[in-house]
Amino acid sequence: MTAAHQQAVEHEIQCLLGSGATLPGALPLRDHHDLWGAFSRAADGGKRFRPGLLLSTHQALGGVREPAAVQVAAALELLHTAFVVQDDVIDGDQVRRGVPSLPGGIAADARRQGAGASEAQRLGEAAGILAGDLGLIAAMRAITRCEAPAPVVERLLDLFESTLHATAAGELADVRLQLGPADGPVVLREALAVAELKTALYSFQLPLRAGALLADASPEVLAALDEIGSLLGIGFQLFDDLLGVFGDERRTGKSALGDLREGKRTALIAHASTTDAWPALQPLLGREDLGEREARSARSLLTAGGSRAWVEDLARWHVTSAAEAAVRHDLPPELVASLDLATAEILRAADLTLPATAPADAPRAQHRAQEGLPA
Amino acid sequence: MTAAHQQAVEHEIQCLLGSGATLPGALPLRDHHDLWGAFSRAADGGKRFRPGLLLSTHQALGGVREPAAVQVAAALELLHTAFVVQDDVIDGDQVRRGVPSLPGGIAADARRQGAGASEAQRLGEAAGILAGDLGLIAAMRAITRCEAPAPVVERLLDLFESTLHATAAGELADVRLQLGPADGPVVLREALAVAELKTALYSFQLPLRAGALLADASPEVLAALDEIGSLLGIGFQLFDDLLGVFGDERRTGKSALGDLREGKRTALIAHASTTDAWPALQPLLGREDLGEREARSARSLLTAGGSRAWVEDLARWHVTSAAEAAVRHDLPPELVASLDLATAEILRAADLTLPATAPADAPRAQHRAQEGLPA
Repeated sequence: MTAAHQQAVEHEIQCLLGSGATLPGALPLRDHHDLWGAFSRAADGGKRFRPGLLLSTHQALGGVREPAAVQVAAALELLHTAFVVQDDVIDGDQVRRGVPSLPGGIAADARRQGAGASEAQRLGEAAGILAGDLGLIAAMRAITRCEAPAPVVERLLDLFESTLHATAAGELADVRLQLGPADGPVVLREALAVAELKTALYSFQLPLRAGALLADASPEVLAALDEIGSLLGIGFQLFDDLLGVFGDERRTGKSALGDLREGKRTALIAHASTTDAWPALQPLLGREDLGEREARSARSLLTAGGSRAWVEDLARWHVTSAAEAAVRHDLPPELVASLDLATAEILRAADLTLPATAPADAPRAQHRAQEGLPA
Repeated sequence: MTAAHQQAVEHEIQCLLGSGATLPGALPLRDHHDLWGAFSRAADGGKRFRPGLLLSTHQALGGVREPAAVQVAAALELLHTAFVVQDDVIDGDQVRRGVPSLPGGIAADARRQGAGASEAQRLGEAAGILAGDLGLIAAMRAITRCEAPAPVVERLLDLFESTLHATAAGELADVRLQLGPADGPVVLREALAVAELKTALYSFQLPLRAGALLADASPEVLAALDEIGSLLGIGFQLFDDLLGVFGDERRTGKSALGDLREGKRTALIAHASTTDAWPALQPLLGREDLGEREARSARSLLTAGGSRAWVEDLARWHVTSAAEAAVRHDLPPELVASLDLATAEILRAADLTLPATAPADAPRAQHRAQEGLPA
């Protein structure tokens, strides 16, 4: 994202947050102040990846609706923040990127004021749900107000609504996936479907398509961007699954024990369940008391069994295929260049935060199920 | 509500729910089907009180935007459903009106398919949060699409957004109130403030004001309706608090033990904490194993101490003051008549579901704090 875009988006986000603070009017609302204040802090300091993707797409397609593009870009950041704070409620996460999550922060405040642990947690969860509601509505309201012609706004709202439906389904599918068995090719397929629904649609397809709609792109370009967004998003989520186990905690700000302790059914674990490493790995997963020593064993098994390399290959395949699709669909050179940048950014982030990969001769032949998935 | 209005609102609600079902397009979405299906069932069979209030207000003010009024009325019902399903998550309610709540129903399904109790509960809660999100967005989207001129839609969206902010603050205040001490005049004041924020604004002020905006009402009429909506809503919530303890379960579909077991800080309990009945009452509150015998003791203490009569008087005062305010503000006779009907409906519902009141000679002199509250 250019510095000018970055500055414009930050300004717009602050305007939206500022006007939200005054919304309930003169009512005596300490609770509103706390709630919206916590949401505003949660919206602070992100990388603004989604706004950047929207703005660069709009620009690369020769779009001339810069003010509207900035307004919708800011709305996407509020939407992202709303998903994040409700996701923290759903997953019970008290910490995010090394600082308290919104539910965790509100709960900690209540504890300091003398509330019991379970009551404080309940207050934090209520705040996360409600702050998310307000964020969603603020995002949608910002789109209704953006300075684009009414038919474009209408298409943006349709896009926003259908994306929300699919993302909610993906979130629910993710929780449901955790209830069933951890092994089997069905889990692997479902984990990839969840990656698409939960991440690719709102983090990639939505910004790409919104930027293109604002630039009056052709149906062909929109369809190509949907394909590209799906590839980028699945690749991104697969890297994220790897980071949850192998990531450098100092760089990711995310515990590399959490996913193992939770026994989370990611594509990585689903793949491992089809390898010879599974009998030794399975007893280590889902143990709340899992220590660093056992985590190292789990990581070794995931590496030796070839699952790490398989997922990493799959992630790279998705991300690089996105760049190839941009060329194949004969998209304008500026858009191809912009998508190349996004691709490079994802790969660089993964390289920076994933310690050196397994040796190339890792026994990848042991994995037994690819089942038509690209490798 | 007239039969024609009732039918038009039902039709519109079904259209909105039907179009939501198709939103994610061709994606393989069992989870979306489950989620939206559960939301649609939760939206079924309500009394459509809020749509009725909107439509009768619009009509009484000579409004001529019937299609838009029906569309916005249906949106309010989706908004109400969204609040209900998220409220059930926040309060941990597995049952609502005698049938499983949305979170409770999804959790029960998961249990039947072999999930553990806490995992099933987590799935139910995730579904409640996400279904509420989709309902909120559907409601807002319906307003953006309604057949009213753009400036009216803009005002409706502003109203919708500020109401949501205040309602969310009220919900959070309600949870927070449960964390502090149960006694004292501050709790009484806060319980009344919560009643206004959590109930009056979205259930009364919003439908009244939306109906009036659609009828191009004057600022004076809008301001009068805000006052009336607040009075009706607080009265309604106070009756609801009484029903939670004294209600006829066969008619309310709501346990008359729940609020006592939870030790919920309602205006009723807050008042009791200022009476001589408190030392005997307090040990009975918040006991999860409270039985019918202890509940009878608690009810007797609330009656003998005068708290029941005080809250009932306060509720009636608010509701009848609303009708008086309609006359005082010189509102059009049709609107006064329509508000009289709403008032009568609330009072009749309370009379039907509240068993005979305490004898008139109950020792009401014992309560010590009225502190400027109307009685």
